[in-house]
Amino acid sequence: MTDPAYRHRSEIGFAETDASGWMHFPNAFLHFERAEHAFLRSKGLLVFDRAAGGWPRVHASCDYRRPLVTGERIDVPLWITRLGTSSVTWKFRINNATGETCAEGDVTTVRVDGNGKPQPLTTDERQALGG
Amino acid sequence: MTDPAYRHRSEIGFAETDASGWMHFPNAFLHFERAEHAFLRSKGLLVFDRAAGGWPRVHASCDYRRPLVTGERIDVPLWITRLGTSSVTWKFRINNATGETCAEGDVTTVRVDGNGKPQPLTTDERQALGG
Amino acid sequence: MTDPAYRHRSEIGFAETDASGWMHFPNAFLHFERAEHAFLRSKGLLVFDRAAGGWPRVHASCDYRRPLVTGERIDVPLWITRLGTSSVTWKFRINNATGETCAEGDVTTVRVDGNGKPQPLTTDERQALGG
Amino acid sequence: MTDPAYRHRSEIGFAETDASGWMHFPNAFLHFERAEHAFLRSKGLLVFDRAAGGWPRVHASCDYRRPLVTGERIDVPLWITRLGTSSVTWKFRINNATGETCAEGDVTTVRVDGNGKPQPLTTDERQALGG
Repeated sequence: MTDPAYRHRSEIGFAETDASGWMHFPNAFLHFERAEHAFLRSKGLLVFDRAAGGWPRVHASCDYRRPLVTGERIDVPLWITRLGTSSVTWKFRINNATGETCAEGDVTTVRVDGNGKPQPLTTDERQALGG
Repeated sequence: MTDPAYRHRSEIGFAETDASGWMHFPNAFLHFERAEHAFLRSKGLLVFDRAAGGWPRVHASCDYRRPLVTGERIDVPLWITRLGTSSVTWKFRINNATGETCAEGDVTTVRVDGNGKPQPLTTDERQALGG
Repeated sequence: MTDPAYRHRSEIGFAETDASGWMHFPNAFLHFERAEHAFLRSKGLLVFDRAAGGWPRVHASCDYRRPLVTGERIDVPLWITRLGTSSVTWKFRINNATGETCAEGDVTTVRVDGNGKPQPLTTDERQALGG
Repeated sequence: MTDPAYRHRSEIGFAETDASGWMHFPNAFLHFERAEHAFLRSKGLLVFDRAAGGWPRVHASCDYRRPLVTGERIDVPLWITRLGTSSVTWKFRINNATGETCAEGDVTTVRVDGNGKPQPLTTDERQALGG
């Protein structure tokens, strides 16, 4: 893999675990989202605005390789693997403190306006996203 | 207590537990909310609509008396304990299958319009809410 | 597709939406999980027990086709598409009240014991799961 | 009020909002919890461990004064207002970037062992908690 476009450092909250003691699986997507949004903000791009729209998902997947538990420090690198006309495909990993990949996934978002209609990425968006 | 205005039957999802094995505490409020919304719908009242508004909370509290675990069948009775000009104060319990009260709380909601501004309860709303 | 092994009827809670007005995307997995657990219970199979173990996910994916909003009645059919030595692969859909598929996904779970170690599906489990 | 025992800086995630555009109300408790856990870690105290136990809640309340929206930077000061034999009562606020209090609440936790049984605060715990 190339160097990630961004890295978001965070941790696993007690609230994100389930009775097994491990992170409840859909919370991987919340960590992916926090990394995506931190990256968008770092580039000055819209995250969400009722009038201006946002980036709903059309696809999300995750492979779970190792459990994550309460208080674990994580590093969430991200890559942009494809820019479509209106869509962005992201790859994310959740690495633990010893650098092992615990979860890895892909998410495809689509740029929509305030009415939820897809709209082409602007030149500025495309450039900020590395296209 | 008088008879409840409504009873909502549900169960504790695995996703609602935390690593202790018990329901993570803020999920009591999600169960209160589901009961409140089921009651509102049963009365033909608005739950939420972007144009017409909704019922944001100004207060929420809960006392936790007994743990709740994965798959437990619950009964959530509710009472309306006060109607203000724009506000409704609710009491909720979460009872387990043997009738023991596991959680008990109060929530105050305010009727707002689509811009989030409080507006007086209508005569119809007041009547449906038992006022 | 063949007939589903099970159908779980539910609804989209206000708490599951985000500021766009649509269901926040990871909540599709919570609806898949509720359907999976309702099915397991209907077959007398374990959902989760600290001593006996459970079914952690090793893969989860979802395609989002249409938005889902507050209060929408949903039907969640499920299919078991593969039984491995220790794993079960599920397909889920979330259909709206007019029968349109709004989300569709696959989840692979692995049967683990109370220490989180994979263990082969028993003959009874395999039979109950349609193998 | 006296100076807070701790301040936790964070932000409101898009995932924490609901269709009204505002933070969904139970998420205030997740922000309280993150502040509580960050404080416990800063003092070298247990957050949660299956064998050693944790701090389940017996009471939680919140007053909501101003809406919080996606991406808002927040400051969560906390105070310990009472130490009982086994219990700790906390006060939390969620302040926005201009210093306004948007939410304010109280939570009472009880120190339990790995079997969920209350146990007296140790001298070390009491001292670390400011008693």
